[in-house]
Amino acid sequence: MFKSRLDATSQAARACLHGEISRKGALAEPMKYATGGGKGLRGFLVMESAHLHGVPDGRSVWVAATIEAVHAYSLVHDDMPCMDDDDLRRGLPTVHKKWDEATAVLVGDALQTLAFELLTHGAIADARIPLIRSLTVAAGQLGMVHGQALDIAAETAKVPLTLDEITHLQAGKTGALICWSAEAGAVLAGADTQPMTDYATALGLAFQIWDDVLDVEGDAAAVGKAVGKDADAGKATFVSLLGLEAAKTRAEDLITNACDALSPYGERADTLREAARFVIQRDR
Amino acid sequence: MFKSRLDATSQAARACLHGEISRKGALAEPMKYATGGGKGLRGFLVMESAHLHGVPDGRSVWVAATIEAVHAYSLVHDDMPCMDDDDLRRGLPTVHKKWDEATAVLVGDALQTLAFELLTHGAIADARIPLIRSLTVAAGQLGMVHGQALDIAAETAKVPLTLDEITHLQAGKTGALICWSAEAGAVLAGADTQPMTDYATALGLAFQIWDDVLDVEGDAAAVGKAVGKDADAGKATFVSLLGLEAAKTRAEDLITNACDALSPYGERADTLREAARFVIQRDR
Repeated sequence: MFKSRLDATSQAARACLHGEISRKGALAEPMKYATGGGKGLRGFLVMESAHLHGVPDGRSVWVAATIEAVHAYSLVHDDMPCMDDDDLRRGLPTVHKKWDEATAVLVGDALQTLAFELLTHGAIADARIPLIRSLTVAAGQLGMVHGQALDIAAETAKVPLTLDEITHLQAGKTGALICWSAEAGAVLAGADTQPMTDYATALGLAFQIWDDVLDVEGDAAAVGKAVGKDADAGKATFVSLLGLEAAKTRAEDLITNACDALSPYGERADTLREAARFVIQRDR
Repeated sequence: MFKSRLDATSQAARACLHGEISRKGALAEPMKYATGGGKGLRGFLVMESAHLHGVPDGRSVWVAATIEAVHAYSLVHDDMPCMDDDDLRRGLPTVHKKWDEATAVLVGDALQTLAFELLTHGAIADARIPLIRSLTVAAGQLGMVHGQALDIAAETAKVPLTLDEITHLQAGKTGALICWSAEAGAVLAGADTQPMTDYATALGLAFQIWDDVLDVEGDAAAVGKAVGKDADAGKATFVSLLGLEAAKTRAEDLITNACDALSPYGERADTLREAARFVIQRDR
């Protein structure tokens, strides 16, 4: 159920996004490339949480395309040599490797701009301003960019972070956009966002713990990017701080919490529960 | 009249912008640095065009802060080594020189995000969605980023551009945000934007021609950045294509057109006319 819904939503979000990118022309090729792969988990969270609140896919797809554009922009910039310096992403050369760094800067910039444009679409109606405002919080100085700045600062200082500090960093870097995605469905419906916030907060943290597990246990070919980088760099991760088994147990506990948070929705939220379990079973 | 209004509007826009930056904390220092200098011409165009349409400064200042944030973001990224590679901006070290390239990427990204947040402010009321939407066009794939991509492509190809091509490139790179700024006042008032579009289209082109004149005739200390770069790089500019005197005459003619476009407003638009004349008298 989850896998087929993930396929359907990621195809719908990508079609929407690529349609808007093509309509404009400039930089279309690298922008489509940058948004061409990926699991589409954030877009799925938008569309499935919307569906759960009675919002049709034709409305929520604009919001799913938005968050996939923001996510892709952050990856393109984060992969640059002056940031994480990654040559491979989703099994393919990163944008600055396939084109050049100037293209990577502009593609990321244009994808962020496009994300906000998508949120002005009429189908989103009264939720437009609330979603634009909350996206600026999730993506900006208090959210994603804050987490990235902490990450860069920690790497520069060469002082390993504590567990509390890593948890705070990841809540910004990865958690903020995941929360925004899951909350978006409730916002579109004008409903209470609290159950989705609780679900996504636990899910986001488990997601990052699992990324750290994959960095240790994963196979580069399956993961689609270099593995073992964090350990090689002596960087503190959930795995280095907790140990491999305890990190896995912590992720499993978080997924149990995430599923429990969906109890107000009963069985109708089973696809979101499956998604949560997938996060700690994935190999990429 | 123009100079005192420029001072007042640039101070108001900066105070609004810096207040929002500080409230959030992360990256506040480099973000304030990146938005600390500059003439504030775009913010002035917003607030003066708003004033002309009966919109109070307390409303338009949020829009002025927005466009100054977008302008600053574009400069921070444009100055990076992989783009224009400038060490000096407004007489001070560029962000990547004073901090590092990673900080420059994140500061630019966060300033773009903040710009859209400012446009969700309640004072902007019914104009919020139209202004957000038009800003995504002016700043994105069809506007500023399009112009920058053409600029990078021309530099990479080492084929000098024709006059038509440079005019098209600059209409995107510089013109789009200047037009958006001047139109914003009419949009805030729900009025016809055509006179402001005509004014700003001519003004924007004259502005860029004058930048090319300053690159040849200007003094680096006054201009606040390196001069002679374009000529050294063998890059086609309005001056290299038209000759210095013809370029000046073309800029003067454009300013006459810009002033004429304001005739529907009569004498009430004299401050905007003064601003237009300032564009081709400035030494930086």
